[in-house]
Amino acid sequence: MSESTKYLLSEERLPKAWYNLAADLQAPAPPLHPATGQPLGPDDLAPLFPRGVIEQEMSTERWIDIPEPVREVYRLWRPSPLVRARRLEKALDTPAKIFFKYEGVSPAGSHKPNSAVAQAFYNKQEGVARLTTETGAGQWGSSLAFAGHLFGLAVEVYMVRISYNQKPYRRALMETYGATCIASPSPNTAAGRAVLERDPESNGSLGIAISEAVELAASRDDTRYALGSVLNHVCLHQTVIGEEAMLQMDMADAEPDIVIGCVGGGSNFAGMAFPYMREKLKGKAVRCIGVEPTSCPTLTKGPVAYDFGDTGKLTPLMRMYTLGSGFMPPGTHAGGLRYHGMAPMVTQAMEHGLMEARAYQQTECFAAAVEFARCEGIVPAPESSHAIKAAVDEALRCKAEGKAETILFNLSGHGHFDMQAYMDYFAGKMTDTPFDDAALDSSLATLPKVPEMAE
Amino acid sequence: MSESTKYLLSEERLPKAWYNLAADLQAPAPPLHPATGQPLGPDDLAPLFPRGVIEQEMSTERWIDIPEPVREVYRLWRPSPLVRARRLEKALDTPAKIFFKYEGVSPAGSHKPNSAVAQAFYNKQEGVARLTTETGAGQWGSSLAFAGHLFGLAVEVYMVRISYNQKPYRRALMETYGATCIASPSPNTAAGRAVLERDPESNGSLGIAISEAVELAASRDDTRYALGSVLNHVCLHQTVIGEEAMLQMDMADAEPDIVIGCVGGGSNFAGMAFPYMREKLKGKAVRCIGVEPTSCPTLTKGPVAYDFGDTGKLTPLMRMYTLGSGFMPPGTHAGGLRYHGMAPMVTQAMEHGLMEARAYQQTECFAAAVEFARCEGIVPAPESSHAIKAAVDEALRCKAEGKAETILFNLSGHGHFDMQAYMDYFAGKMTDTPFDDAALDSSLATLPKVPEMAE
Repeated sequence: MSESTKYLLSEERLPKAWYNLAADLQAPAPPLHPATGQPLGPDDLAPLFPRGVIEQEMSTERWIDIPEPVREVYRLWRPSPLVRARRLEKALDTPAKIFFKYEGVSPAGSHKPNSAVAQAFYNKQEGVARLTTETGAGQWGSSLAFAGHLFGLAVEVYMVRISYNQKPYRRALMETYGATCIASPSPNTAAGRAVLERDPESNGSLGIAISEAVELAASRDDTRYALGSVLNHVCLHQTVIGEEAMLQMDMADAEPDIVIGCVGGGSNFAGMAFPYMREKLKGKAVRCIGVEPTSCPTLTKGPVAYDFGDTGKLTPLMRMYTLGSGFMPPGTHAGGLRYHGMAPMVTQAMEHGLMEARAYQQTECFAAAVEFARCEGIVPAPESSHAIKAAVDEALRCKAEGKAETILFNLSGHGHFDMQAYMDYFAGKMTDTPFDDAALDSSLATLPKVPEMAE
Repeated sequence: MSESTKYLLSEERLPKAWYNLAADLQAPAPPLHPATGQPLGPDDLAPLFPRGVIEQEMSTERWIDIPEPVREVYRLWRPSPLVRARRLEKALDTPAKIFFKYEGVSPAGSHKPNSAVAQAFYNKQEGVARLTTETGAGQWGSSLAFAGHLFGLAVEVYMVRISYNQKPYRRALMETYGATCIASPSPNTAAGRAVLERDPESNGSLGIAISEAVELAASRDDTRYALGSVLNHVCLHQTVIGEEAMLQMDMADAEPDIVIGCVGGGSNFAGMAFPYMREKLKGKAVRCIGVEPTSCPTLTKGPVAYDFGDTGKLTPLMRMYTLGSGFMPPGTHAGGLRYHGMAPMVTQAMEHGLMEARAYQQTECFAAAVEFARCEGIVPAPESSHAIKAAVDEALRCKAEGKAETILFNLSGHGHFDMQAYMDYFAGKMTDTPFDDAALDSSLATLPKVPEMAE
């Protein structure tokens, strides 16, 4: 009668290595120096990142050991649960099996600490005293705040001013973990001062906040910078999700036909899907689906091009799906998916045909999130609701086709700090903006010109 | 090298029965009818509760089976983790071992669903279509909202108007789970209308909200009422916490010398401590400590007396530690501990010498909560911070005395919906009010006169 709901791994089975998809892809296009257009070497990154992180960023080793002090912190919440969404299956009346991996059990409530803890460790190991970073909605900032504190690092988070004012609870979370949270633009940096001079009331932007955090890291010997998505090492750290999920799907005696994650910068999707792509490259039949918002359709409407990672055009150029670094998506609730570019490794996976992409409007995602919450109890983050919507749609397709496929999605976080979005949804105040193709065209017209590649 | 952090039970080991401390105590003093002063019989409660719940309320059976449909819902988050707080031990530099049972993994984020699910089940089983309840801060209301939805019951939550306005996110959570949340006083009931007539701007109170919920349940055939603490059956349902903890402490090869829980109405403390009291009655040496706020010191300053459960003086009279049903504690952040009375079974346990009680000010509890969050990642609910403060104090005593005792506390919930309290704490806006002994004296002067007991 009673069938399992959760599949829990004991701590001993916490993966001992991260999986690096770069080992199984063709040589990636290197990042380019923003001034010279020449490929970047490790030395170019040294003012910003510790050696351990730079090595991982450039590594093509297939497996990279998770250091024991990182695993020790992971054990506070990892292995995270794999759950069979039996009530959702029943509500949808689908022959499909639906599983989800739940990353909301982490201290900050999402998958972000998987990389924050690793980055804090490598920085500490190399004598760094302070980390700077930027945060929009606050998921990454609170994760780094927690991770930094555990390793004895001071953490300064530059938070986009409008979020700083609108999301005081995320800010309180960062302070609870001992970090300093500064509204950006701030008077602490040349970049911030320049903006404030032009516009003392500036709301800020992620681009400005990145500029501030990078400037401080580059100008102080004891300080480095940490980024929460996009880069290869961040995708790498997240693969602990998919590696655990594989062990847990074995416990459930199931194999996913479909693996789903939402995509913003790409690291949460990568974390779940890259291990399955490895098996796909070996011949396993599995579809990997990245789900993005219609309002920021990087994979579904963007070209692949070299572009800046930030709106301030200060970062290295990366080859990626992009909407142009000046593209401004409308202010939807899934703040973590409002990024113009896509992780270079996810870009490659897409080009290699290892995955597919689709886009949804936010109201249909919230409808799916509410149905999910009523069945399974967990209130999903707005970002994660995109993965749920895709899982529900696939389950309904299975029903229509009479197919008992197995669906696995990554529930990247809970929505406890996003209840305003649910209030707007119930009050009928949530809207879907038609996509502005003209704005995309003009954004893409400003893509940087890249000099002919050095072979 | 690597020692366990979490002790997880497989779903098969989810307890099959709740433990009823009433079986091991002397015959409890019965509740009395508020009008006649005569002991209540099952029929008196029938307009409010289903038979299954009334039987449990009056039962002296030692073990009561957890129905399989309830266990099936429990499995969404249960068994909850037992965690060894190794980083906190290290930060305190104590020889004590500190364990905590974490109930914040439930859908609503606290222990409350343990009873909400059971109550929803028994109501559904007896054909009830609708449940009414009251909620202050919203923990109980959101738990019943979720449980009711799973069993197909409509749920109407009367939420104290000031909380309704101040805590819109808890309200959004109830609506996410499909409940109707109504600001109390409301025009839906005679009780509500009477208050509104006198004061159209009334902020409401828990007493008024109880009156509204009870009135509706009593006046509709298809409707029953549900209460989230105090009563015997609620304490009973919560014992799944302590029963799991015992199995998990065995896994950790440890025995608690001290068991700690915060006390408001008493059910969260009861859930953890009653199973240990059973063993104490058999001779096991274990201290059980209930921790309450200095501002609402029911166990540490109240007498034992027959009193009403609500400020509106509508409920049966219960024999309990009480500050008087008219006692108004100051508006501290631990809303769940601001109750004038104490569960009759906890009262009995105190009288039998099975437990001790202590009180703390809220700022010292928040200091402990912040230290805990920085070590263990979890941001505690304001209520739970009281248990943490006691655990920290006991660990420091162990350090001073050079004793390696084992401490187990119940972390009843997370503070994700209480971040305003943390903001106030960091901003230095949180204050401790000196206790008003004169107010207590005048409240106690109005305790109801109870006629000589029928034998």
